[in-house]
This record gives sequence, C-alpha cells and structure tokens, in this order.
Amino acid sequence: MSNALTVSVPEGVPFIDFEREFDYPVTEIFRAHRDPALVAQWLGPRGVNIDMDHYDFRTGGTYKYTHSDEEGGSFTFSGVFHTVRENEFAVQTFEFDGFRDVVSIEFLTFEDLGNGRSKLTGHAVYPTLEARDGMASTGMEDGMNDGYERLEETLAKAHA
Amino acid sequence: MSNALTVSVPEGVPFIDFEREFDYPVTEIFRAHRDPALVAQWLGPRGVNIDMDHYDFRTGGTYKYTHSDEEGGSFTFSGVFHTVRENEFAVQTFEFDGFRDVVSIEFLTFEDLGNGRSKLTGHAVYPTLEARDGMASTGMEDGMNDGYERLEETLAKAHA
Repeated sequence: MSNALTVSVPEGVPFIDFEREFDYPVTEIFRAHRDPALVAQWLGPRGVNIDMDHYDFRTGGTYKYTHSDEEGGSFTFSGVFHTVRENEFAVQTFEFDGFRDVVSIEFLTFEDLGNGRSKLTGHAVYPTLEARDGMASTGMEDGMNDGYERLEETLAKAHA
Repeated sequence: MSNALTVSVPEGVPFIDFEREFDYPVTEIFRAHRDPALVAQWLGPRGVNIDMDHYDFRTGGTYKYTHSDEEGGSFTFSGVFHTVRENEFAVQTFEFDGFRDVVSIEFLTFEDLGNGRSKLTGHAVYPTLEARDGMASTGMEDGMNDGYERLEETLAKAHA
C-alpha cells in the first residue's frame, strides 16, 4: 500500500496540485464525495466538528459547511459546483469566509485503477499568488491528509 | 471621454485583467449585467446572434448562452455565479464548450465614480498558462471591446 497524499506548490504560478490513491473502487470514492452524510464524516482535519448546511454535489449545485474546532474557532466554507460527472470529474469554487471574495476553483479527477483501487487528482487555482501562498501555509496539507484518511475510515465503516 | 478598454495579459501567471469606464452610473452598468434581456443585447462581438438559454445573475445562479456567427459557427458558454453583490461585485465561472473542462473564474468589480460615471474591473484566472494564452489569442479583446460598446448603446436606447 502506498496511498500517500502528494501535494505540490509550483513556484511562480497560483496552483496547488495533489494526488492520492485509495484501496477502494472509484465508485466508492465518488460516492464519498457526493453523499453529504458521508462527506460530513471525513471532510477536514481530525478534531473538528462539521456542521453541514448543505452539500449538493451536482452540476450547478452549491455547498456550505462550517468547521468548529476545540478552541472555539469557527470556519465556514462555501462554493458552487460548475461540473460534476459521475465517477469521473468535478469542478467547484471554494471560499473561506475568513478571506472574503478570495475564491479559488478546484478540478478533481476520479480515476479507476482496476483491482478495486482508484486515484484522485486535484488542481486548485487561486486568484493571486499571495492567496495561493497563504493557503499553502495554513497547514492545509495536514488537513487534507487527515481528511483522506478519514474518508478511508468512513468507507471501511460503511463496509463493516 | 476616455472609456477605452484596457486589457493586460501578465507574463508567467494565468491571468487576464481588464478595466473600462462608462458614462453611466454603476446601477445602470450592474442592471445591464443582471437583466438577461439586456445582457442578450450586448454580450459578445458585433455580428453574432445570441441565444440566451438562461442567465440567472445571482449568488448560486447559473447561465448558458450560444453565439452564432454569420459563417454558421456556434459557440456555447456556460457557468455558475459564485457571488453576486448588487452594484458591487460578482464572481463567476466560465466555460466554452469548444474547450471542455477548461473552466476559468472571473472576478468583476463595479465601482461608482460619481458624476454619473462608473468603472468595471475584471480579473480572469485560467487553470493553466496555456489556456490563458489560448484565450488571449482568440481576438477576445476585440470581442470585449465590441461588447462594452454595445452595452453603452443598449443603455442609450433604454434611455432614449
């Protein structure tokens, strides 16, 4: 098993790229992104509570959720889904209310690797280099790492 | 009057920036962006016909329209509005069906200049440098120039 998250922050362009493999078929990984009850179990770092206002993972749908941490911090995220193609591809906008109007756009590719395995590839694009650098310095990578581990745990529970 | 369109294509980052002033108050320029019947009169270069499938200029709304030119070409554009704040600000995604999944995000700022004048500032962000360069080489600037002239003509007619 080598399902490590790889994150790259290329110099000079406002992108963050990542990829990760999973020991689950692409249909399961997609379902964990589409079903709000499943998303609520994994999206975000360990130790935060998620309040899912709504999460409508379809072309033209919108989402909004709030993370609360143990120190009383509260962080709301919202956006729209430009494209969602089942088991294949999604494009969404993303805004953190702590940085109003700094909206990024994220491209997610779901790929079947065969043998019950799959791969998720992400390309996030920020409105400025500064916004990208700010995001990359927030511990985002740890949060994503936690999130995808929790996604696997969520699917493991669903299959138990 | 110096209401020229200024477009800049900065080297090395996937942005296109533009600005233009108008001899109309910000409320009128915003209305010309919100009302689909007005949008259909100006959006795009001269000589194209626009078929407005829908244009729901509000936070969480979506849009889709098709340009047809005299040579029989047909070009469909679609996206979602992440944010719309009246007379102030909008964020939208943008996709041309000729380049599927190459989705850009555009930030539009509406500004009151007083004396019945206003300014529109745009910041478009592309998923790759190549996509930005491709867009910049399509005659986009001429099309935008036409569009904003037609916007003024549309408002002049509405006031006649």
